[in-house]
Amino acid sequence: MNAEIIAVGTELLLGDILNTNAQYLAARLAELGFTVHYQSVVGDNAERLAGVLQTAKARARLLVVCGGLGPTEDDLTKQTAARVFRDTLVEDAEELARIQAHFAALDKPMTPNNARQALIPAHGGKFTNDNGTAPGILLRDGDNYAVLLPGPPSELRPMFEKRVMPWLRSLSDSVLVSRWLHVIGIPESQLDVQLTPWLNAANPTTALYAKTGEVHIRVTAKAADETAAAAIADTAVQQLCGELGDAVYSTDGSDLETTVVQLLKATGAHCALAESCTGGMLAQRLTAVSGASDVFECGIVCYSEAIKQKLLGVKAETLAAHTVYSAPVAAQMAAGAAALAGAEYGVGITGIAGPTGGLPGIPVGTVFIAIHGPQGTFVRRALWTNRSRSDVRTRAVTAALELLRRAVLGLPQPDAVPYCGGE
Amino acid sequence: MNAEIIAVGTELLLGDILNTNAQYLAARLAELGFTVHYQSVVGDNAERLAGVLQTAKARARLLVVCGGLGPTEDDLTKQTAARVFRDTLVEDAEELARIQAHFAALDKPMTPNNARQALIPAHGGKFTNDNGTAPGILLRDGDNYAVLLPGPPSELRPMFEKRVMPWLRSLSDSVLVSRWLHVIGIPESQLDVQLTPWLNAANPTTALYAKTGEVHIRVTAKAADETAAAAIADTAVQQLCGELGDAVYSTDGSDLETTVVQLLKATGAHCALAESCTGGMLAQRLTAVSGASDVFECGIVCYSEAIKQKLLGVKAETLAAHTVYSAPVAAQMAAGAAALAGAEYGVGITGIAGPTGGLPGIPVGTVFIAIHGPQGTFVRRALWTNRSRSDVRTRAVTAALELLRRAVLGLPQPDAVPYCGGE
Repeated sequence: MNAEIIAVGTELLLGDILNTNAQYLAARLAELGFTVHYQSVVGDNAERLAGVLQTAKARARLLVVCGGLGPTEDDLTKQTAARVFRDTLVEDAEELARIQAHFAALDKPMTPNNARQALIPAHGGKFTNDNGTAPGILLRDGDNYAVLLPGPPSELRPMFEKRVMPWLRSLSDSVLVSRWLHVIGIPESQLDVQLTPWLNAANPTTALYAKTGEVHIRVTAKAADETAAAAIADTAVQQLCGELGDAVYSTDGSDLETTVVQLLKATGAHCALAESCTGGMLAQRLTAVSGASDVFECGIVCYSEAIKQKLLGVKAETLAAHTVYSAPVAAQMAAGAAALAGAEYGVGITGIAGPTGGLPGIPVGTVFIAIHGPQGTFVRRALWTNRSRSDVRTRAVTAALELLRRAVLGLPQPDAVPYCGGE
Repeated sequence: MNAEIIAVGTELLLGDILNTNAQYLAARLAELGFTVHYQSVVGDNAERLAGVLQTAKARARLLVVCGGLGPTEDDLTKQTAARVFRDTLVEDAEELARIQAHFAALDKPMTPNNARQALIPAHGGKFTNDNGTAPGILLRDGDNYAVLLPGPPSELRPMFEKRVMPWLRSLSDSVLVSRWLHVIGIPESQLDVQLTPWLNAANPTTALYAKTGEVHIRVTAKAADETAAAAIADTAVQQLCGELGDAVYSTDGSDLETTVVQLLKATGAHCALAESCTGGMLAQRLTAVSGASDVFECGIVCYSEAIKQKLLGVKAETLAAHTVYSAPVAAQMAAGAAALAGAEYGVGITGIAGPTGGLPGIPVGTVFIAIHGPQGTFVRRALWTNRSRSDVRTRAVTAALELLRRAVLGLPQPDAVPYCGGE
């Protein structure tokens, strides 16, 4: 069944707030098996809102409308939607009592605009609001439905999950189950070719999402019930993992840093970091994972050569011979960090994030990323040209996490070369 | 002039990603004086996209379309928009050369779908992409314009600011000039009362934007020409600075970390950091500023007590007497970082970012932030309850930057207490 999402609010049109409700509702409707072809945002204006509702009603059997139910909004959304769905609003005694009780509990006077929140459609229905005073509204005109929800996410989300979803399940004719594969080391354009049969298939459907330095693959299966849909999706995940091998780093939605923390935890190993151009971004991403303290010892953000020598044991002659932007320095940083912290794994990152600072033979965007571990030390030389400082840093951190993942798993390092010391 | 924002992407309809582009574009268009009555989201489907474009073209003179320009997307957005704007696509030699150079620099093969990104409208124009391979597209049909932008925010935003905004300014019938005041230390609710006359005024208009740990104030003046508008806006900025005093940390749009780097640079001073619960986020934010290497010496991300003692000189008896989550430990971390790096200023942060790990008397969300400098050492004890791990970390970093800013400026530290040592 087709559905549309309509958000009402001038603050969305002015860019004052993000439309998080649209994303939330879109994800829930997709899970329930509804097909959403359009989302709209419209302001607090009766004529334009009526136009949007009429257009959507002609295209989709279910409209989910959010926002515009608050006490200060003069009932515009509710009155307009009721008109489009050929219904009228009547006062609901139960809702009025709830609102009166709410204000009595707060010991505040109830103003007349609050009483308007107790109006519900004469022929439709309502969804109780456990977290605010505005009830959700159900409108029906023949085979067309509209659900009106309050704008604050703290009211909308619990109402949708507890009251609206059970009712929507009874409307939907099938169940969708989605699974995610997170892939690193194969560019989107190559996956696009390699997975063409998957991308063209009807059930499950497969889609690629390019992220900075990695690609996410969504597999969605449709069936009459959840068990059957899950079986189709899980089989597809297994087959895709077979095709893509160790480029798949997670199949449960985990991000790369969470995957790395879990792998380290599972092997009882620890890591230490030495970051120059990434400036603490790698430490920050690893420690954003709750429980990182079990595997993360320390990170040194070493901008000066003096600190690299003093804390990490980078040799003066290596700096003199190769400059600070070099594989040997990255390798010594990685080994130095591991030694400093007594950790099994060390990561070293040095390079030129830009926008300025390039040297002859070492253009802006050059980054050396070293991993030191039980298998030895490996260094990747990466070059990201025409990228912002932030993008180069993000890609370097993602590349470092991938080197660390492969090291902990004992996988080969196709992007890096062994470093044998002797500097 | 009316404008509409249209985002193209199935991942938006499925709720896989947030429509941050729509918010960004809405805010920029509002600043430029465009009126946006509608936003839409539509999938990668030619017929539905054409319908949305036709409807929007009939309602608004400017359409800003984002997404659907990537190499795997089969040019659907570009081809469809060109048809609606009665234009055709031709290969642009300059763009083709740029794309070829990009792949040559990467030493990767260029696939045919990449070449399609070099197609631009025969009668329209293009906006160069400094951060990716897909150029922005300009279409014109009589008095109607469409601007097509690449979906990744890292490409869309710089392109919009550098290439599209100057062109849009020439379309608008009056000139708006906006100025930003960034304010820290006064909550939004207090500003809302204090600045009521400003918030109700018609020219300039003033709006508050609550950010994590700070508030941004936008002042927008309207006049016939830029000089007149700038004069109104600048006078307002001066008056607001007078009212808000040293809570205003920038009036040129600079963020807090850029402001701090500039202040340190101006005084020839350096800083060093010791971070526990913020895990490198402070280092990362400071070093995200290009040129930070002039003022930033090193950052120690010290998760273990052993590293705090070994590198920063935190005393075992202080840890035993006060726990690691305490003002004395934060103060010793700050002083230790400064001593280690030979920097004038040191920052120490220790606390419990959560979601678990609270201790008796030290609930989750407690963070101790110390600043060590020529005026001595000051520690702020902050408590952010009912906040996510990420939010607590972000607020702690912002608070640390503010302590550092005030220290460098020699301002009093109303939120912090002096630490006198003796532990």
